[in-house]
Amino acid sequence: MIITLKKDASRIQVEAITGKIRELGFSPHITHGKELTTIGVIGENAIVTKDIFMAMDGVESITPISKPYKLVSREFKKEDTVISIGGGVSIGGREIVVMAGPCSIDTRERLLSTAEAVKAAGAKILRGGAFKPRTSPYSFQGHGEKGLKLLAEARKHTGLPVITEVMNVNDVEMVEEYADVIQIGARNIQNFDLLKAVGKAKKPVLLKRGLASTIQEWLMSAEYIVTNGNPRVILCERGIRTFETSTRFTMDLNAIPVVRHLSHLPIIVDPSHGVGIREFIAPLAKASVAVGADGLIIEVHPKPEEALSDGPQSLLPEQFARLMDELRLVAGAVGRTM
Amino acid sequence: MIITLKKDASRIQVEAITGKIRELGFSPHITHGKELTTIGVIGENAIVTKDIFMAMDGVESITPISKPYKLVSREFKKEDTVISIGGGVSIGGREIVVMAGPCSIDTRERLLSTAEAVKAAGAKILRGGAFKPRTSPYSFQGHGEKGLKLLAEARKHTGLPVITEVMNVNDVEMVEEYADVIQIGARNIQNFDLLKAVGKAKKPVLLKRGLASTIQEWLMSAEYIVTNGNPRVILCERGIRTFETSTRFTMDLNAIPVVRHLSHLPIIVDPSHGVGIREFIAPLAKASVAVGADGLIIEVHPKPEEALSDGPQSLLPEQFARLMDELRLVAGAVGRTM
Amino acid sequence: MIITLKKDASRIQVEAITGKIRELGFSPHITHGKELTTIGVIGENAIVTKDIFMAMDGVESITPISKPYKLVSREFKKEDTVISIGGGVSIGGREIVVMAGPCSIDTRERLLSTAEAVKAAGAKILRGGAFKPRTSPYSFQGHGEKGLKLLAEARKHTGLPVITEVMNVNDVEMVEEYADVIQIGARNIQNFDLLKAVGKAKKPVLLKRGLASTIQEWLMSAEYIVTNGNPRVILCERGIRTFETSTRFTMDLNAIPVVRHLSHLPIIVDPSHGVGIREFIAPLAKASVAVGADGLIIEVHPKPEEALSDGPQSLLPEQFARLMDELRLVAGAVGRTM
Amino acid sequence: MIITLKKDASRIQVEAITGKIRELGFSPHITHGKELTTIGVIGENAIVTKDIFMAMDGVESITPISKPYKLVSREFKKEDTVISIGGGVSIGGREIVVMAGPCSIDTRERLLSTAEAVKAAGAKILRGGAFKPRTSPYSFQGHGEKGLKLLAEARKHTGLPVITEVMNVNDVEMVEEYADVIQIGARNIQNFDLLKAVGKAKKPVLLKRGLASTIQEWLMSAEYIVTNGNPRVILCERGIRTFETSTRFTMDLNAIPVVRHLSHLPIIVDPSHGVGIREFIAPLAKASVAVGADGLIIEVHPKPEEALSDGPQSLLPEQFARLMDELRLVAGAVGRTM
Repeated sequence: MIITLKKDASRIQVEAITGKIRELGFSPHITHGKELTTIGVIGENAIVTKDIFMAMDGVESITPISKPYKLVSREFKKEDTVISIGGGVSIGGREIVVMAGPCSIDTRERLLSTAEAVKAAGAKILRGGAFKPRTSPYSFQGHGEKGLKLLAEARKHTGLPVITEVMNVNDVEMVEEYADVIQIGARNIQNFDLLKAVGKAKKPVLLKRGLASTIQEWLMSAEYIVTNGNPRVILCERGIRTFETSTRFTMDLNAIPVVRHLSHLPIIVDPSHGVGIREFIAPLAKASVAVGADGLIIEVHPKPEEALSDGPQSLLPEQFARLMDELRLVAGAVGRTM
Repeated sequence: MIITLKKDASRIQVEAITGKIRELGFSPHITHGKELTTIGVIGENAIVTKDIFMAMDGVESITPISKPYKLVSREFKKEDTVISIGGGVSIGGREIVVMAGPCSIDTRERLLSTAEAVKAAGAKILRGGAFKPRTSPYSFQGHGEKGLKLLAEARKHTGLPVITEVMNVNDVEMVEEYADVIQIGARNIQNFDLLKAVGKAKKPVLLKRGLASTIQEWLMSAEYIVTNGNPRVILCERGIRTFETSTRFTMDLNAIPVVRHLSHLPIIVDPSHGVGIREFIAPLAKASVAVGADGLIIEVHPKPEEALSDGPQSLLPEQFARLMDELRLVAGAVGRTM
Repeated sequence: MIITLKKDASRIQVEAITGKIRELGFSPHITHGKELTTIGVIGENAIVTKDIFMAMDGVESITPISKPYKLVSREFKKEDTVISIGGGVSIGGREIVVMAGPCSIDTRERLLSTAEAVKAAGAKILRGGAFKPRTSPYSFQGHGEKGLKLLAEARKHTGLPVITEVMNVNDVEMVEEYADVIQIGARNIQNFDLLKAVGKAKKPVLLKRGLASTIQEWLMSAEYIVTNGNPRVILCERGIRTFETSTRFTMDLNAIPVVRHLSHLPIIVDPSHGVGIREFIAPLAKASVAVGADGLIIEVHPKPEEALSDGPQSLLPEQFARLMDELRLVAGAVGRTM
Repeated sequence: MIITLKKDASRIQVEAITGKIRELGFSPHITHGKELTTIGVIGENAIVTKDIFMAMDGVESITPISKPYKLVSREFKKEDTVISIGGGVSIGGREIVVMAGPCSIDTRERLLSTAEAVKAAGAKILRGGAFKPRTSPYSFQGHGEKGLKLLAEARKHTGLPVITEVMNVNDVEMVEEYADVIQIGARNIQNFDLLKAVGKAKKPVLLKRGLASTIQEWLMSAEYIVTNGNPRVILCERGIRTFETSTRFTMDLNAIPVVRHLSHLPIIVDPSHGVGIREFIAPLAKASVAVGADGLIIEVHPKPEEALSDGPQSLLPEQFARLMDELRLVAGAVGRTM
């Protein structure tokens, strides 16, 4: 990192700073300019000590020059990470993988019929929520383990691997037992104990970006999982919060090539939450494939007006099937298969 | 619009409100509920009087139920507007139109060679800035009329219609003389006198979204142009300002289908400004076509490190040509031509 | 809530909607206007069914007309809630209460001397972090129970009640044992299982606003705690995330009078996190008192350059003492005591 | 500025970069570290050439280490700038100056009576809009010169200097003739030709922050005015656009001490626009004084429900008088007079 000194920094202050740099095991490189003086702090992970220097007299600002994450970075591992899910499905390769299903698991019949329908349309993974993070305490909170069991039944029925969310460190073991992919929702992006817990799990983790996470913070949350032992992290862009209110969130598709540049992890997109309005899901799904995402996660429900959550952004099975046909064409246009 | 009353609104307050509604020529419709009372205000353009009621005692909130713009709305005109630019080019139809060229016009030679190059690659309109809005007073401010003349020369040379920005009401006439499309930049989205001035011009206007404009405000700025007499407005998404700092702006591709739903005007995307980093322009350009944009505007410069502005986000001519080939495939995949 | 119909909604669609309204136990009130038709849905908690109607054909938009929270609302309870903390301290009354101490608990000596210093300056509650939510897995994560024990020792020593953060449902019981106030950090604002867990605790809860929480979501998170049995919730504004990067966050002081209007709960401000730069803490602390906050939480550390976290935003004990003197004057000017 | 090289930058790339640095008249200082290599670019205004280097191969990122504005910076001029307005009023000294009056000038009678009322309450400058920037083309656009004449009459009547907005370069001369302070509204913060025009005016300029301007951009817009010859610029914070929708904008009071640190220019606050809801203006006005603002600009109207704009955020004259009494107490508490 580079420390820029205040114009009026005294010699004593500068000595205190360089002394502290050496004390911490780094080496200081001073550059005196006409306008200002900077001190480079050279050494592994120097940036972790940033706050120490920010708190010292004579310091104007500090500039990180290396990244605060390591294991998830493209510099650490050059090749794309391909994550095998089971059932012959893997994410991060040439094939674009679509996960689909209801937001919340409701009845057995509906889950099974939706599972059949999304499979027939070409989805490779079944999604369904058993634990639901809801803004209001008065909204439906999910069927819990009962839902997980239905999900497992749908897997048995269709052969599709399943993905479902975990919200609580105490449920990780149970969710891991039923799910093929464990989902961490946007609201838990900095629930660090939960990140550590799924870092110890044996199943791949889908890590949704928080609604106000910078890309850097998101990668640092992924680093929490990897550094705890689980290298199989799939990132998922799902929209960020901005001033625009005509859609539920603002999809940040810039994030796809940026993440691909910074990290070797696979990245997918959730257009259902990112837009939040049924009729706009399809164009954004196509854009996501065109921009280079490795997959999509899409909400599908046969009776959106009876869905226990997210009805307005769920596609009907026939809409989903039509979209899949369109996506295949876009995937082909950008050199991917589906 | 609907006025929701405060729980403790008095009878006298309610009468004052309904009296004012009638005084303004509208008719009030009261609904008494267990929880609260609402008054519907029925009549053309009632929403314009919103502030009057917000300022009255007993009013809790006001909800617009019709849109504050009219001429640009899809309700006013169902069919897509197709705008003819000249030189056989039109925007808003099945064909995707790409505008390309340098951010700022610098030398004659470079402009001409860039114009040739983008034409050869398939661009249909040449872009180039003569008046440049620059954040710093110490940055290059554009060549002014000299630049416009070079642009006209490049048009003569290549046959490509040209687009350039106007920043000042006093330059509208001059710019109109040279340009085929007049551009209003993001920073002038609410420069209402400029909007009125180009509303009186005879050339089509490209209206970039402001960096903090809601979609509704953007359409209201378009309404300023149309209501002043110029129906040929092309909208252009160019990224909004959010908390994310890893790209210059956050592209809001959600806006494309939303605008298409709300308005009959054509809409294009500027990925160069929306991302601001050369290597991420191509994927976002492809996403823009996939999401349904009618065109793109892209910065191209043969020597980015000598460009007078926006070098870091300019494509080299050969990168642009390669991108055009890729875009044609995506356009085909979503049923468009290029 | 009010359902606005699409202009071209068919009679059959309207009947489906009104049928569904009755089926759910509410009553529909149709208003036909020249421009459009609306249906009022009258009945307790109708808004919870919003998604059902949003998912139906013929619906253009839905407008909530009552609030989605209840127990925390000013409508539910008119008088300000005053929360007794113990040690003779209570929050929400005329007296402004200042909580102060180090971000992270480090050594015993420092904690005790800081506790003495902040007490001498007039702080009424001691703060100190034992479990630290850190963006990077490589940063110091807190001393855990050892830190809690030091905190309890500092309480015994000074008589000051103590506040500390809990991050994990499994630690709630332990934290409750040591702390007088349990803090929920900004990153856990929608960690709903944690909210439920502290809703069952017997100690008051300080609920920090999330960095991208709307005021409404924040109050709904408070509702989670209250509805689970714990009515003693203190709200804390600590800055939101915006595009501005010259301070760590953007303090939203508008939120203080807005929350006071909407809710009966006490609200305090954390200027240390809200600004993040030592020299700007004092003016923002004064503004917080002037705007009507019931208290402040401020980071104080005797050696900021050796602090384990947040050194750059910690005040020195002598700076804190000076600030307290200044705050007393401002408190007096707005009719509060300190 | 400091150029950080890509890890795999070649020797040829590095030579091209250092060659370019010398070619532009600066001197390069290379620091080789284990992790990475940086090149300091030393020389006056080096940052203006940033884009040139960003566009070169081998460059990872560029860090500005000096500020992009100069004349308005605290480094250029250490002492606070005090601006004399006329009528014995000056801004930037110990006295807090309040500007008040209607948003739009409507009738002569109302303007005169409001002027008398705000003067009696202690306001030192009369505000009133003759040219109104309105989001909708269908809203009232101001009385133009007729309004300016009424404003001049009100000044004659009361002795209060007047402030009014200019939106168009062609109106600057006319507005300058009538006004004592020329206002540039938030929407024109980057209308650079207008900034240049008021830079040539002889009257002080009030420069409102744009709704998405960073503090740095705002100061660069001030630099445009000063560098064109007018050093008398008063800054005005008026709220920024964020995701929060419960107030019209989010007041950024952090900006007051930050600007005071970076610049010698006086800074005032506009709580009327910053909050947008009458009942919340008073607490935010008090916070603005407490945080260190040099003044306030507040909308006052005797009949808000008949105001031609901004009725809901206008104070009644008696509310304003009461607020002024409260503000005097806060001003005293922070060592200011009023």
